[in-house]
Amino acid sequence: MDLNTLRNSFLGRLLTEPADMAAFLTDWRGKWTGRAIAVAQPDNTEGVATVMRWCHAHRVPVVPQGGNTGLSGGATPDTDGLALVLSLTRLNKVRHIDPVNNTIEVDAGVTLQQVQEAAREAGRLFPLSLAAQGSCTIGGNLATNAGGVQVLRYGNARALCLGLEVVTAEGEIWDGQRGLRKDNTGYDLRDLYIGSEGTLGVITQAVLQLFPLPASQVVAFVAVPSPAAAIALLQLAQARLGSSLTAFELMSDACIALVEKHVDAARLPLAERSDWYVLLEVSDTQGESEAGEAIEGLLEAGMEQELATDAALSSSLSQFKALWALREDISESQGAEGKTIKHDISLPISNIAGFVTQTSEALSEAFPGQRLVVFGHLGDGNLHFNLSPSPDRCGTEHVAEFLALEAPINTLVHDAVMVHQGSISAEHGLGVLRRDESARYKSPVELKLMRAIKTALDPLNLMNPGKLLP
Amino acid sequence: MDLNTLRNSFLGRLLTEPADMAAFLTDWRGKWTGRAIAVAQPDNTEGVATVMRWCHAHRVPVVPQGGNTGLSGGATPDTDGLALVLSLTRLNKVRHIDPVNNTIEVDAGVTLQQVQEAAREAGRLFPLSLAAQGSCTIGGNLATNAGGVQVLRYGNARALCLGLEVVTAEGEIWDGQRGLRKDNTGYDLRDLYIGSEGTLGVITQAVLQLFPLPASQVVAFVAVPSPAAAIALLQLAQARLGSSLTAFELMSDACIALVEKHVDAARLPLAERSDWYVLLEVSDTQGESEAGEAIEGLLEAGMEQELATDAALSSSLSQFKALWALREDISESQGAEGKTIKHDISLPISNIAGFVTQTSEALSEAFPGQRLVVFGHLGDGNLHFNLSPSPDRCGTEHVAEFLALEAPINTLVHDAVMVHQGSISAEHGLGVLRRDESARYKSPVELKLMRAIKTALDPLNLMNPGKLLP
Repeated sequence: MDLNTLRNSFLGRLLTEPADMAAFLTDWRGKWTGRAIAVAQPDNTEGVATVMRWCHAHRVPVVPQGGNTGLSGGATPDTDGLALVLSLTRLNKVRHIDPVNNTIEVDAGVTLQQVQEAAREAGRLFPLSLAAQGSCTIGGNLATNAGGVQVLRYGNARALCLGLEVVTAEGEIWDGQRGLRKDNTGYDLRDLYIGSEGTLGVITQAVLQLFPLPASQVVAFVAVPSPAAAIALLQLAQARLGSSLTAFELMSDACIALVEKHVDAARLPLAERSDWYVLLEVSDTQGESEAGEAIEGLLEAGMEQELATDAALSSSLSQFKALWALREDISESQGAEGKTIKHDISLPISNIAGFVTQTSEALSEAFPGQRLVVFGHLGDGNLHFNLSPSPDRCGTEHVAEFLALEAPINTLVHDAVMVHQGSISAEHGLGVLRRDESARYKSPVELKLMRAIKTALDPLNLMNPGKLLP
Repeated sequence: MDLNTLRNSFLGRLLTEPADMAAFLTDWRGKWTGRAIAVAQPDNTEGVATVMRWCHAHRVPVVPQGGNTGLSGGATPDTDGLALVLSLTRLNKVRHIDPVNNTIEVDAGVTLQQVQEAAREAGRLFPLSLAAQGSCTIGGNLATNAGGVQVLRYGNARALCLGLEVVTAEGEIWDGQRGLRKDNTGYDLRDLYIGSEGTLGVITQAVLQLFPLPASQVVAFVAVPSPAAAIALLQLAQARLGSSLTAFELMSDACIALVEKHVDAARLPLAERSDWYVLLEVSDTQGESEAGEAIEGLLEAGMEQELATDAALSSSLSQFKALWALREDISESQGAEGKTIKHDISLPISNIAGFVTQTSEALSEAFPGQRLVVFGHLGDGNLHFNLSPSPDRCGTEHVAEFLALEAPINTLVHDAVMVHQGSISAEHGLGVLRRDESARYKSPVELKLMRAIKTALDPLNLMNPGKLLP
């Protein structure tokens, strides 16, 4: 294996010095650190193909990496040091915007925020939106089928992608860069690569769907008595607002208390506290007054039915941002409070209220003194069902004790998810974090089918080995 | 191979008499007729699994069949008589409706119309809608990723499906019956089976997404000067109406003339003829007057910009149906006129006007005297770019002459589709009809990936052999 030959065979960089490689070998949260023979940063698809052919010829495992912002360890190499990290960040061109076809063609290494901005400059909306958008790349978003706050209306990353270019495990280039909304000419390779976490091939380009920019957006922060009331309010909102309902988020009072504690500007916009809150957003093709009226009508009906007790509406862009910040700052505030135990689960919406009640009780019985920090995308059935230590046990002296609970708490929560017919990874993927747990819950038939596909597309098991599948 | 052993091993019917089998051996248009050793009609998933295990053990090819309404010959056995037809029509239960989760769980053999009706009874919309809905089954819709008239807003069959149950080529049951909008726990098996035309496994159940019933629907039949104007009107409609725009269909005057000739009640609802028409539908969560106002505002703006010259709006359910009938009766009227040459193509919407102009000219130059019958789902970039003989050559004495043109006309049209970066099968699938042409246009890399998947999931090549892939 001659790394110099590889270095000279493609356009781009090949990093081999430990100091140069370090940033690529640890995930951004510092949860996983691995080793690698090198970090390759090709400048284009041809370069990716060249690197992949070299790795295939030399039986070198490959760990594809985008913005390195994943939450499941899917982009970090393992510790044996045999793999090459393939960073896609230098494939960074927005190639083409077609406002008539409502599509944008981008390289895999373009950040999500760059895609959003390019779309906006063309008078269009690219709706995928999540906390890491300034750093995460669209290739990583597709490889993990990312979600975020607008899934209710626009779907997840998979639903927003029309075409892909992929370099296969053998280093061949599959050109599936199509800007078509209908194409029934064979197996759905696109959706197979999407969400496969780099274990089947390397996404190098994508054609994404754009939408008209909404003329107005209004958000309401609503006090609700319970998750069950929140779900009934969601039904009402869907019936009254249809697809102009673009977000419907749930959070407990513990979440808002954490944000108020750790974010200076944050304050509850309501006179009285409530156990639960909903943040809902309406996007309208008409003016702000129409959107405001629609929300007001909904809230009036909701209060009449005792599904809501109070609400604050945004009437300016700064209020819109401040209300959204209460929701968006939860995750960071929970991190600032101390160690966390996180679950990214989804459930049929009809099972959520029961799940929350039963699982909260079971947790407080089995693991007393922990704080539940429950929030999420209620409209998608996706909850971040997290835990923090109780306020008096957030000091460093209690960390080990708290983290020792992680495995048994995971088992309790995920077993309950299975009973309620849900998923233990709604939008973060499996990576290494949930790989073994997921395999434990899946049926033998499903694992067999997944392994058959893995073997078919990556017979030498060189693509991100050890991720997604045990 | 003992068919009596098979007959006694599962709940359901096994037909072996030629008279009993006949209806299953010819597609509904009578385009393809094959032979089979038997037609199995199991009553449940276990029965399907039993039949599949028997076929696997005896190396008997299997042709899965739903309502037998396909347009590409995907559900008809070939003429060698070695295959077994596996009819899913006795798996016909609507299992569960969950109005809170907005999902419906159905057997594969339930007809599309039964799904629509069950949803409506629960106050919900199942939006997939197409001409064969009274006969086609949801299993077939999923196996072919069916489209139809509401794709613009709700997506095709794939986008409407959350979960599947599938019997594999070996006769194992994969339970992927999940009612989740987010689930990132492994490879997307669901979307791989959807659209695979029965060549990878047998779909036996599905969980489908439901939507709120619109409070009102209004349709407008609009005269437009050209496809380019229709596309500009589409842009305007999307900006002004957002997702309340639920259909946007294009048709040429030749289409409407055929409907007027062959359907008694049909008449152009406008004072003057136009070369092209658009039918657009608005579905609103509010009342009819809001939907009507929204359309009127759009049409006013469209006429100001010379994108539309005249329009008729529905103001009653009977008018709504009559205007839709002008669009929906095109296909049958073209059939009543005589033989047809059909193309089910999709294009980036920005390429449609150029494609239509250039390809129409090329056709009339190379094959003078044919009539173009162009209509389709403009909002999805999907055209049915069809031909009929000229009016004086519709008699039976000219049939052979016309049909001799089919292959060269297909080549001209499909070559042009490729130049314009489109697909030669937008919503009908490949079956046997487009199998070889599709393989000719696909890259070797794509064919190799598709074959690798086929071999992985159906190593003995028993699942609908000869369909989709040559």
